[in-house]
Amino acid sequence: MITLLARPGSLVAGAAVPLEAEEERHLAVRRAGLDSAIELLDGAGTRADGRLLQDGRRLTVRVERLTTEPQPAAMVLAVGAGDRDRFGLLAEQAAQLGATRLVPLETDRAVSVATRLRHAHLERLRRRAREAIKQSGAAWAPAVDEPLPLAEFLSRPRVGTAWLADAEGAAPPGLPAADPLTVAVGPEGGFTAEERALLLGAGFRPVRLGPHRLRFETAALAALITAWLARQRGRHG
Amino acid sequence: MITLLARPGSLVAGAAVPLEAEEERHLAVRRAGLDSAIELLDGAGTRADGRLLQDGRRLTVRVERLTTEPQPAAMVLAVGAGDRDRFGLLAEQAAQLGATRLVPLETDRAVSVATRLRHAHLERLRRRAREAIKQSGAAWAPAVDEPLPLAEFLSRPRVGTAWLADAEGAAPPGLPAADPLTVAVGPEGGFTAEERALLLGAGFRPVRLGPHRLRFETAALAALITAWLARQRGRHG
Repeated sequence: MITLLARPGSLVAGAAVPLEAEEERHLAVRRAGLDSAIELLDGAGTRADGRLLQDGRRLTVRVERLTTEPQPAAMVLAVGAGDRDRFGLLAEQAAQLGATRLVPLETDRAVSVATRLRHAHLERLRRRAREAIKQSGAAWAPAVDEPLPLAEFLSRPRVGTAWLADAEGAAPPGLPAADPLTVAVGPEGGFTAEERALLLGAGFRPVRLGPHRLRFETAALAALITAWLARQRGRHG
Repeated sequence: MITLLARPGSLVAGAAVPLEAEEERHLAVRRAGLDSAIELLDGAGTRADGRLLQDGRRLTVRVERLTTEPQPAAMVLAVGAGDRDRFGLLAEQAAQLGATRLVPLETDRAVSVATRLRHAHLERLRRRAREAIKQSGAAWAPAVDEPLPLAEFLSRPRVGTAWLADAEGAAPPGLPAADPLTVAVGPEGGFTAEERALLLGAGFRPVRLGPHRLRFETAALAALITAWLARQRGRHG
């Protein structure tokens, strides 16, 4: 079974959905023949099973079966936006682990990183987060926000329970399955004392996510896995 | 505070411990002056605080205080040995997350990877796992075994409870804090059906480690975080 991406909202039962150019290239690499079984994911909850067709010069997928999944409880990951390659890998792994939104934070210690993530890299980052669901099979891809200063992030309404990834924090508390969660993770080098005070003042609770000090990408993944497990416990007792 | 590595067993209270060449280079980069406070980790449970001294042409550290930590419960991570760069990153993250032993497995789907991990890369991999504890502050570094075939791994006595990372498995069970654990993770592309049957026959229990299908490195990290959390729960009720 070959899995491809489709534009959000483009999947309609019975329709012949034209493939995006990038997905056509992907099919060429896979050497897929006409009438191959194709799974399409729109990254916004809809999954379609269909068959590959030729329609003039374009490849399309005739949708035979549609399923939709409700949006999962919010899992917002706000991470200091340092090196863009490492952030790209993080976006990919965050998609596999069920993040619903990724917020790159401009922080004091990330702002001096020469290779740091900037607005210009955003489209590629979004594409990478969406691409990751092809392998993971997730119906929802994470949204990826524009990089924004920590203070601006904190001035927005907070989404659900808020954790601050912190080696000195408490063990992770339980989490009811349907509760939204926001986790803030510092960049390489961490948040400054001032930034940490801002986060605590905004209600972020320091939570320890592993046995030792973690690098920022590892802390972000640990937060997602911890949240998933906490919700599993919340669901099954 | 500057943290450096020392050879296992080399740390003795009151002694002047000569630094390894690689650590001397690290100090030069950090521009550390004589009498700087240095933390030494031997990766085998001993941590020393001391001061930097010049002894002829060599730099040494005069050990002022020693602490030792008991070896943690075994956390063996046996992972299909595909691409060596990705395996290197895994070794680094596994050290941060408390793996006690990393076993590279030769499996059917990893053996055809051109860039796969081989015996020749082992020293570098071991160094990378040890280097990681400088940042994480762990007293113990994971051991890294020679790559070995899955069947040979399974013929050895099994260490503790055994999980097989599997997207179709059960939710992670609880784990008493002091219980050893072995987790097997397939390479990119997964274990074959035959390999999976071997693992199940050897008592490995399929455990699901996240909401979706995970890439092998992500699954390995998820296993370590899950085990840490399960032991935290086992410890605190």
